[in-house]
Amino acid sequence: MSNIKGICYSDAVFKLIKTSGKARLGTLKTAHGKAETPFFMTIATAGAVKGLLPEEVRELGGQVLLGNTYHLHLRPGEDTVKKAGGLHKFMNWDGPILTDSGGYQVFSLSKIRKLKQDGVEFQSHLDGKKIFLTPEKAIDIQKKLGSDIMMCLDVCPPYPAKRKEVEEAVAYTSDWAVKCKKAKGKSKNLLFAIVQGGMHADLREKSAEELIKIDFDGYAIGGLSVGEPNKLMYKVLDSTVPLLPSNKPRYLMGVGTPEDILNAVERGIDMFDCVLPTRNARHGYLYTSRGVVRIKNEKYKNDMKPLDPDCGCYTCKNFSKAYLRHLVMAGEILGLRLCTLHNVAFYHKLTKDIREAIRENKFEKFKKNVIKYMLKR
Amino acid sequence: MSNIKGICYSDAVFKLIKTSGKARLGTLKTAHGKAETPFFMTIATAGAVKGLLPEEVRELGGQVLLGNTYHLHLRPGEDTVKKAGGLHKFMNWDGPILTDSGGYQVFSLSKIRKLKQDGVEFQSHLDGKKIFLTPEKAIDIQKKLGSDIMMCLDVCPPYPAKRKEVEEAVAYTSDWAVKCKKAKGKSKNLLFAIVQGGMHADLREKSAEELIKIDFDGYAIGGLSVGEPNKLMYKVLDSTVPLLPSNKPRYLMGVGTPEDILNAVERGIDMFDCVLPTRNARHGYLYTSRGVVRIKNEKYKNDMKPLDPDCGCYTCKNFSKAYLRHLVMAGEILGLRLCTLHNVAFYHKLTKDIREAIRENKFEKFKKNVIKYMLKR
Repeated sequence: MSNIKGICYSDAVFKLIKTSGKARLGTLKTAHGKAETPFFMTIATAGAVKGLLPEEVRELGGQVLLGNTYHLHLRPGEDTVKKAGGLHKFMNWDGPILTDSGGYQVFSLSKIRKLKQDGVEFQSHLDGKKIFLTPEKAIDIQKKLGSDIMMCLDVCPPYPAKRKEVEEAVAYTSDWAVKCKKAKGKSKNLLFAIVQGGMHADLREKSAEELIKIDFDGYAIGGLSVGEPNKLMYKVLDSTVPLLPSNKPRYLMGVGTPEDILNAVERGIDMFDCVLPTRNARHGYLYTSRGVVRIKNEKYKNDMKPLDPDCGCYTCKNFSKAYLRHLVMAGEILGLRLCTLHNVAFYHKLTKDIREAIRENKFEKFKKNVIKYMLKR
Repeated sequence: MSNIKGICYSDAVFKLIKTSGKARLGTLKTAHGKAETPFFMTIATAGAVKGLLPEEVRELGGQVLLGNTYHLHLRPGEDTVKKAGGLHKFMNWDGPILTDSGGYQVFSLSKIRKLKQDGVEFQSHLDGKKIFLTPEKAIDIQKKLGSDIMMCLDVCPPYPAKRKEVEEAVAYTSDWAVKCKKAKGKSKNLLFAIVQGGMHADLREKSAEELIKIDFDGYAIGGLSVGEPNKLMYKVLDSTVPLLPSNKPRYLMGVGTPEDILNAVERGIDMFDCVLPTRNARHGYLYTSRGVVRIKNEKYKNDMKPLDPDCGCYTCKNFSKAYLRHLVMAGEILGLRLCTLHNVAFYHKLTKDIREAIRENKFEKFKKNVIKYMLKR
């Protein structure tokens, strides 16, 4: 564990404040304010966090929201969002917004897709309409949305995939990254590239090198948490993260569980997003400081204690496990809302604590403690 | 239009403050505080307003919540609620709660039911389990819930119904009312009886007379808004309301549209409940000061103006019609929440305005104006 004192990159976008081992504390500057890293982005796929107001996410410690180019293009359409004055005004959130490029969704949600040199043709999962998404179009949409952090359109191979398929994905991703950077032009929106390469260290290296040569505001690691064993993901991080420039933010896409986040921060990742806290909340799978609570369990029927006695969120301060269980069992909308509120609070509290631990140069100890507690049951 | 000055019944439960025509301004005293009449009760069937926190309902002007004996008995069960310290603590609402007796639900939700002298046997709509609900049991459940205003178990005939069936319903309702009053004993919970009699003026009179003789804290009119034409409902109110004691609160169950409420207040009704504001909100049917807005309509796709420029609710202050439409079209939970918030705000604003109009002795003029606006489109 090392603590590099006095290092402070003056790069406009990312400032490294402190490290604890490889874990990094920093700030990311966007057109809508700064965010302290490592941070977790709450998912607002279609321009709304499922069940929560943007200002509630802010109160829970959320700094950056994540919208999705694919979903917002299909509905309501980027032109409507632009007419509203951008996604920030449309959804009433004045903090930073990162927009995913749509690449992952095209490859995961659309049944029929054709990969071409220029882009990807796919069918809308809503009405089956054929849509041709190019790197230029992906950037155009994200500009219209008013995204603070745009993502390059990439090709995300499934897991497992043949090496040839992964090689192809890396080639497309690099080619499209050039086009995305050109399409970005002089706009102030930040642009991140996505490192692909599946589980192959050499392909990851190739992808990273090619993208770094083009030069982006930040680098994401894509194609992980797609079904591979956790250890494999950590192995890829071990080999890939050191390839990324230390003066740029590093974003691990679609990850993950609280443990995944701790393990990735330990390896030098700065940014995260994941559907887990919100989606799991809707199924009554709740994160607490004393382990996961599956609130539908019969044993909570008459449990009048709060969900997490160490949590200060509205749900934990005002309601019992018995009430939450009742709401979830009865399918009450308020149950979705209260459970989501808690899980989002948990994730933002976790990342806040992570930042504090790095600041105090005791990340490794903190991580061990948290994992010990979280695995308690 | 008359204004009876100086009349102030000192009855512990209900105080009549002022009248404007037959419209009445009053206060209803319960174990959890006073409520000013006429008021509208937001529905919290299973101990939760669909999508809203109790404190949000309070902020919107809500004074009394309505829980349901039938639903709460089935899930989570009155014993669980009692263990929580009652429904108030369970759901975190310290204002008055009225609980419906379950009679209406037994007759509307349960497929198989057998009416017996002692009570009614029905099948749970959740798991088909047979349940026998008696007047005594209905009161016992409501006591365990900690209801401020309990309702007698009644028999609610459908519309249309044969006269014989309505006669039978009136007989059962009176018989069970005696048993409910006895079961109430000396508990401080208020107990209201429900006048039945269908569309027959003479049966309504019989029902009212029998119940008034037993003496209750308030009187409800049940069996209306069950499919009959609106004019018929008003006709029943015209003949029935004058039969009710003027020093007791009068509650029109399950009603209704904003116009129904205005027309019923005009006839001397003090209390209302209805699923319309919450259920309609979930379908994008929104009440505004300028008429109903069906937010799914294509014409709102790019409408960046607020839903109701005269409304001060969070939804109208922070979001556009285009955004609400997008949320509802996309099936976003936040859409249900924001639409519900607005409709509940509308109903409570309406009843607040009604109270002000009565206070200023200009209810009739107010009613005409509101109906004119609301019917504009």
